[in-house]
Amino acid sequence: MTIGVKASHLTVVPQALAVAGAVMVLVWCIHFRGGLAWESSNKSLIFNIHPVLMLIGFIILGGEAIMSYKALPLKKEVKKVIHLVLHTIALILGIIGIYTAFKYHNESSITNLYSLHSWLGIGIIVLYGIQWIYGFLVFYYPGGSTGLKSESHPWHVLLGLFVYSLAVGNAALGLLEKLTFLESSGLAKNDAEAYLVNFTAIVTILYGAFVIFTVFSRPAQDDSSYKAI
Amino acid sequence: MTIGVKASHLTVVPQALAVAGAVMVLVWCIHFRGGLAWESSNKSLIFNIHPVLMLIGFIILGGEAIMSYKALPLKKEVKKVIHLVLHTIALILGIIGIYTAFKYHNESSITNLYSLHSWLGIGIIVLYGIQWIYGFLVFYYPGGSTGLKSESHPWHVLLGLFVYSLAVGNAALGLLEKLTFLESSGLAKNDAEAYLVNFTAIVTILYGAFVIFTVFSRPAQDDSSYKAI
Ligand code: HEM
Ligand code: HEM
Ligand code: HEM
Ligand code: HEM
Repeated sequence: MTIGVKASHLTVVPQALAVAGAVMVLVWCIHFRGGLAWESSNKSLIFNIHPVLMLIGFIILGGEAIMSYKALPLKKEVKKVIHLVLHTIALILGIIGIYTAFKYHNESSITNLYSLHSWLGIGIIVLYGIQWIYGFLVFYYPGGSTGLKSESHPWHVLLGLFVYSLAVGNAALGLLEKLTFLESSGLAKNDAEAYLVNFTAIVTILYGAFVIFTVFSRPAQDDSSYKAI
Repeated sequence: MTIGVKASHLTVVPQALAVAGAVMVLVWCIHFRGGLAWESSNKSLIFNIHPVLMLIGFIILGGEAIMSYKALPLKKEVKKVIHLVLHTIALILGIIGIYTAFKYHNESSITNLYSLHSWLGIGIIVLYGIQWIYGFLVFYYPGGSTGLKSESHPWHVLLGLFVYSLAVGNAALGLLEKLTFLESSGLAKNDAEAYLVNFTAIVTILYGAFVIFTVFSRPAQDDSSYKAI
């Protein structure tokens, strides 16, 4: 089920969306929400790290990790290391990002894990971790037999796309949830900030869609030296 | 990228989730929210039609339409008609469902289209309509050349899965949004109703994930008479 667009061309679109999304979430959290802080008496500044790390660290870097396989004109061995390293950074930043949400809740005496967003979030990071461990063991070190590798490959791609889509949807859900909290404490529905947050969610979803598209596009090098596993 | 599970076995799971989701949204709207009505002085009863039609009519029937291709042990021509008819009903019920949200807003003097959910919703129903028209013209009547059909096939599947995933995500977003409204007008976060709504969202997402899984599973009949287009 391959689509006749070359990945190296297609990725221009998600790369532009990634820059836009990163700028938007930074403008939101720093300009509109007062900035980022690891320790502060203004606990909201601790929360603000959460969307920044989840969007830039987890969603954008995780998407780059997925696209790297098709979009880069490099040797398979090199791309495997890039895929692995980028997913490792994404997973670590995702875990730190979730930790900051808990830290904010604890220091402001807000209950943990009361929302759909937080439950999905825990499920997603656990699945992402399992996917990482399985991918590492089978495709990298010690590495499975050729048979196991090719048996595992479609599952790895499908479950990878599945958990990645959930992560993108959950980021949009988090943006919307935060916006609803702000609106119920007085932010006007047609305020510039409300539009910024909604458009950040739309850019995030479009970015995620294009990441998934690349997986079905033609690899950067079309020669017979390209092999999947 | 086919996975070694047979669609006709795999679909047991989404069928059970579909029943659960349908029951949950009905219990929510009828038992907890006071029932459904097309005309009423209690405008909330008009709104209640929206989640019921969107979940049962649009998401569940649309998912059945997608699964029918792989899961039913029937001739390709028959399955094509089932796929077409189910998507047609899903699209019509989806349009009526969106209409009831507008009707509720208008009769209660609430602004239309102020939320991310509503913007995504409009985008999704338009894309679904375009996908329907293109699918109808190319695969059904008058039907494209064999070349056009097989060129279009991967795009049809990919864009179909894309718009369907967005619809599933948007249904979860709508459930969460409505729950947040209810919580800000007094519903306790640990009320039974809050759990019901959150679990309906989780069941919806799982159902959507399994629908997508079937597309990558082995068709019900494995013989060589199976051809895709
Ligand atoms: C831009 C993206 C995001 C925004 C704006 C956001 C927003 C929020 C908000 C407002 C909360 C506190 C309320 C609550 O518990 O629901 C929260 C908590 C949480 N978020 Fe996010 N989120 C984003 C992305 C993500 C992602 C992608 C994940 C996981 C993959 C995630 C996982 C969590 C978890 C686990 C909590 C619960 C922490 C606790 O209960 O103490 N978030 N997020
Ligand atoms: C949790 C993290 C991970 C996710 C979400 C993920 C996701 C994906 C996705 C979506 C693809 C399809 C890319 C394409 O075909 O264009 C893929 C391919 C692949 N991944 Fe991962 N992956 C993860 C971790 C790993 C790890 C740790 C390894 C070990 C090195 C690995 C090895 C591979 C291999 C060998 C392929 C095949 C590439 C191809 O078919 O061209 N993955 N991964
Ligand atoms: C169980 C599923 C759903 C629930 C609980 C739900 C909930 C809501 C709520 C609370 C509103 C009013 C507030 C607003 O405008 O955001 C609304 C409006 C709307 N919904 Fe949904 N929704 C669901 C599914 C969907 C789906 C799947 C779509 C489209 C594919 C959709 C499309 C719309 C549209 C276009 C509006 C705007 C109507 C207007 O502005 O007058 N909904 N929905
Ligand atoms: C908006 C509505 C539609 C959506 C979301 C949609 C989605 C899909 C999806 C996801 C598949 C992949 C199924 C699989 O391979 O297991 C598919 C296959 C297909 N659809 Fe649609 N479809 C729609 C409307 C139509 C229409 C109106 C027709 C015309 C009859 C059509 C004809 C086909 C054909 C011929 C296949 C190929 C099945 C195969 O590869 O085995 N679709 N559709």
